[in-house]
Amino acid sequence: MRLPWQQIAFVVEIDRLKLVLRQTQLMDASRRENSAEHSWHPAMMALVLAEYAPAEVDIQRAIHQVLIHDLVEIDAGDTFCYDAAGHDDKAEREQQAADRIFGLLPAPIDQDLRQLWDEFEAQITPTARFAASIDRIQPLLHNWQTGGGTWKQHGISRAQVMQRMAPVETGAPDLWPFVLEVIEESVTKGYLTA
Amino acid sequence: MRLPWQQIAFVVEIDRLKLVLRQTQLMDASRRENSAEHSWHPAMMALVLAEYAPAEVDIQRAIHQVLIHDLVEIDAGDTFCYDAAGHDDKAEREQQAADRIFGLLPAPIDQDLRQLWDEFEAQITPTARFAASIDRIQPLLHNWQTGGGTWKQHGISRAQVMQRMAPVETGAPDLWPFVLEVIEESVTKGYLTA
Repeated sequence: MRLPWQQIAFVVEIDRLKLVLRQTQLMDASRRENSAEHSWHPAMMALVLAEYAPAEVDIQRAIHQVLIHDLVEIDAGDTFCYDAAGHDDKAEREQQAADRIFGLLPAPIDQDLRQLWDEFEAQITPTARFAASIDRIQPLLHNWQTGGGTWKQHGISRAQVMQRMAPVETGAPDLWPFVLEVIEESVTKGYLTA
Repeated sequence: MRLPWQQIAFVVEIDRLKLVLRQTQLMDASRRENSAEHSWHPAMMALVLAEYAPAEVDIQRAIHQVLIHDLVEIDAGDTFCYDAAGHDDKAEREQQAADRIFGLLPAPIDQDLRQLWDEFEAQITPTARFAASIDRIQPLLHNWQTGGGTWKQHGISRAQVMQRMAPVETGAPDLWPFVLEVIEESVTKGYLTA
């Protein structure tokens, strides 16, 4: 069997995801979260919240999607979800990053991972919609646990968070009532402007 | 459907794994690695090295095992693999941690995750042996990429690394020749004492 030098070059390259900082603070507010430890967290959420996934969701594939969904940030950086300007060329930057990063792998794994990422980005399949729902609930929990966190820093309103979280209503309907409770509590406590 | 408050309490609790520091340096040597971002990395390795797994390995289950294997460190801390004294009461500290942390979850997920962790710890099944192999290869890559890293700091020898990596020979035989090449290169370059 051929030695896995090409796969290992990829494994070495993706270590850089640990250096990409998100806006989100850790739940103890001690520092900003990086995209590698972030990617681990929704994978854990998919494991323990599997019973809340719609029946059509392939949970293993959802776990794979959240594990790889942010790899493009190694080249494209993290774009804050409430930064409208940063989103103008986000798709193009991320496509180029996907070409380079998944292209480090040999066939057929390069295509397998690229398809996984394309599916997550397209947000059409139930699996991708559930994966994205989990990925959006995770920073909601961080902001809720840190007394408003990045919401307060940026003066974010309930309407903005409702818009950001809206895909959860169809992607993970059984988790939607929970999301609404967290948002209402956050408004009541002043973490979000009404 | 019941709201997932108990699962969410677990998801919030495990954020603390991002605060547990390992001896390992990131591959750019800029800082120490934490156990959450570490846990993500072997999960990615399992994805891209799946074809190197023995036929009896359940790759999905191996991914689950590496994702959860270090959760006990939230209570028990990380024990450096070459610290003989720290290993005296490691098993007992980690069992107590597993009782508390997995016990945060409702049935049957609490037992599902506990069994996953018990299986990883017991190192009897092909899946657990492959998961542990990947988990040992990951810091090998870090030390190799950082010109010796923690090996040099602690004056680690080839014999110590061979002992540490030995389970890979049976857990992931198709990766063993690669591991031997990395170790020999590391001795040649002076990262490890001969």
